[in-house]
Amino acid sequence: MDQGLELLTEEQARQLLSGAEVGRVGITLGALPAIFPVNYRLIDGAIVFRTATGSKMSAATEGAVVAFEVDDYQLADRSGWSVLAVGPAEVSDDSELASKVADAGLEPFADGPRSTIVRIVPTFLSGRRLVHRTEPTGE
Amino acid sequence: MDQGLELLTEEQARQLLSGAEVGRVGITLGALPAIFPVNYRLIDGAIVFRTATGSKMSAATEGAVVAFEVDDYQLADRSGWSVLAVGPAEVSDDSELASKVADAGLEPFADGPRSTIVRIVPTFLSGRRLVHRTEPTGE
Repeated sequence: MDQGLELLTEEQARQLLSGAEVGRVGITLGALPAIFPVNYRLIDGAIVFRTATGSKMSAATEGAVVAFEVDDYQLADRSGWSVLAVGPAEVSDDSELASKVADAGLEPFADGPRSTIVRIVPTFLSGRRLVHRTEPTGE
Repeated sequence: MDQGLELLTEEQARQLLSGAEVGRVGITLGALPAIFPVNYRLIDGAIVFRTATGSKMSAATEGAVVAFEVDDYQLADRSGWSVLAVGPAEVSDDSELASKVADAGLEPFADGPRSTIVRIVPTFLSGRRLVHRTEPTGE
């Protein structure tokens, strides 16, 4: 437990990460922090998303250590969880990965070409779940 | 438009920011980037949330320039928006702000004391909305 939050195991965090589709990437743009949502898949243990070639996102992630966050909250009953992954990102031109991205049905939500594939390999993975003392946790 | 995304005006971004309750703070922890969700309110133009006194979040936000992101996506129809605010954060011991926080009903989702109030004053505010060419945008 950590201040009212249940700390998840790395395996639990990975499970939640593999089941979601929208996450947020934390990068640095012009020396300022920025967070942008992306739709993604977990492929061979790596977080994979598509971006436009030559985009700010492409430049900011290439070779950088970035944060990636996924969460799901239900305001009504104050329940929810979040997962944080941190690791080096790289722009990948691996054709095998491109095939897997296509197979996984990973299509960017936004219109327009996004042919650059960014891959984040989590070296640090953690998760937290809201647990309220007044409710049975089931665990 | 920016690569299939409609760029919102600062006023539109502020409206969306004022209407949401869960956002993500991008900070640096031990030289590594991190993103954590918080429930928050927009009070007098500032993003305000509560954290535990002496917490990592408290230390990491004090005096730092941080990113704050809010979004809402509907996977089913690939619609949604995101807002990014960037600005200096500070731990506030202002009693007037504490009263406003209480009046706004800002209670942390997690159990446990979170009596430290963090305030982010956005110096940069932007927003993006998914717009698909195959659908009427209504705008």
